[in-house]
Amino acid sequence: MKVKIALLQEKERGSTEANWSRSLEHMEKAADQGAQIICLQELFAGPYPCQEETPDNFTEAVAIPGPETERLQEFAQRRECVVVASMFEKRAAGIFHNTAAVIDADGRYLGKYRKMHIPDDPYFYEKYYFTPGDLGYRTWETRYGKIGVLICWDQWFPEAARLTALSGAQILFYPTAIGWLKAEKDQVGESQWTAWNTIQRSHAVANGCYVASVNRVGTESAIQFWGRSFVADPYGCEVASAGDQEEEILFHECDLGLIDQIRQDWPFFRDRRIDSYAPLQKRFLDND
Amino acid sequence: MKVKIALLQEKERGSTEANWSRSLEHMEKAADQGAQIICLQELFAGPYPCQEETPDNFTEAVAIPGPETERLQEFAQRRECVVVASMFEKRAAGIFHNTAAVIDADGRYLGKYRKMHIPDDPYFYEKYYFTPGDLGYRTWETRYGKIGVLICWDQWFPEAARLTALSGAQILFYPTAIGWLKAEKDQVGESQWTAWNTIQRSHAVANGCYVASVNRVGTESAIQFWGRSFVADPYGCEVASAGDQEEEILFHECDLGLIDQIRQDWPFFRDRRIDSYAPLQKRFLDND
Repeated sequence: MKVKIALLQEKERGSTEANWSRSLEHMEKAADQGAQIICLQELFAGPYPCQEETPDNFTEAVAIPGPETERLQEFAQRRECVVVASMFEKRAAGIFHNTAAVIDADGRYLGKYRKMHIPDDPYFYEKYYFTPGDLGYRTWETRYGKIGVLICWDQWFPEAARLTALSGAQILFYPTAIGWLKAEKDQVGESQWTAWNTIQRSHAVANGCYVASVNRVGTESAIQFWGRSFVADPYGCEVASAGDQEEEILFHECDLGLIDQIRQDWPFFRDRRIDSYAPLQKRFLDND
Repeated sequence: MKVKIALLQEKERGSTEANWSRSLEHMEKAADQGAQIICLQELFAGPYPCQEETPDNFTEAVAIPGPETERLQEFAQRRECVVVASMFEKRAAGIFHNTAAVIDADGRYLGKYRKMHIPDDPYFYEKYYFTPGDLGYRTWETRYGKIGVLICWDQWFPEAARLTALSGAQILFYPTAIGWLKAEKDQVGESQWTAWNTIQRSHAVANGCYVASVNRVGTESAIQFWGRSFVADPYGCEVASAGDQEEEILFHECDLGLIDQIRQDWPFFRDRRIDSYAPLQKRFLDND
């Protein structure tokens, strides 16, 4: 019932191939140290592409599955690791997604999650690039456990975590790219981090599962990505934590048996008032 | 846009009238210090009644509104304070609720919230006593702001906080009675507290509002109520905190202007994928 996970917190290296080399090297190191599930940060193969609305950035998008997924599958099969990899997906002319591919420890491509909640605020112009996901919330049964994937902005929505957990996930992975803007950091930087850390740890609490969040680190143009990747246990306690300056491979051995225990002690799933939740499908309850 | 709230963290005093005297005295003190909204802990008028299934305990239940509500209304009108008061409600023969009354600063009874999520685990046998609430999630426009009330076990359910916030609440009040069992405290006591603190602070984050949680303190039979009442701002930062041993009147001046600001900076309500939330009305997504 134990599974060792590794989160790859990384810096932009200046080219797609340099980023791939960096990540493949870290994946090998993680496997050397016994990682069974490896999760990469959001859009690991490139710089964070949404700081401006730049048409040329669409050329970085790839088919999923496709040649890039196959590179990861080769690794997964050879090292017997599950891999969760966030990539910029080209689905069709004019339809792009922010997507995570899930690969099992035998190298099989299991499927993908397409980011459902798309942000758009200064230096995070994602609505220009990414069509909102249309695959819903998913869990995959991998060799080492049932896992769900959500991506960055999804982390602010308890509904997304709940629906993924209800579909069976024991660990929720959040590939992420969040950071400070220079103009805001002094005044609200730590508050922003507190909010980000708290909301994700709360998904572990609400759903009696593990949460593993892996964030970029380093400065790219206007954004200082704050790293601080972490793992939270089903009490929402942070059981592994990365720093905010450097690349790190963050490991944690998750005890999946704890999920049974805590859900029995605090049976939230038993007591959900599903008869009262229909208005969650409303934007706001102002009777307009 | 500023409103000063007071949370009354109190100990059981041995009789209904002693508890009322204690609370009325604290309410006067809170008003003396400028409190505009006062929230009492869960079932403030008695000991926590659910440690055993004891038929006689039903005799403690009262009509809401009724003579007890009127005592609070007299205070509210005289001191121009909004009052949120959790009481054991007798609705009809055989129908009892765990209810909070809301009274405006002119003494008017505005309405009540009936606890929707009812726990039942060792020493918290609430399903015996309390019929699950049937009034849904509510917000009241008071003289000093729009407030919602949820009660104790409700705090574990992001759905309840979300629906109350969507109905307009700027501050979510959580009258609570949670504590440690002696057999568990050493091993998981701090983890339990972390979970409780984290999930409630997360409701502030997810919904860009204030959360004010007021807990009992002191030992009653098997339970050591852990106090630690707190207020969280819309970043989920704890901006006021009580200790875990003593009675306290915890004050905080909430800046309701911050709600507009943070919901504009991080527009989660804009981006909720309401088209994808229907399965929240399911117990579990196992295709049974």
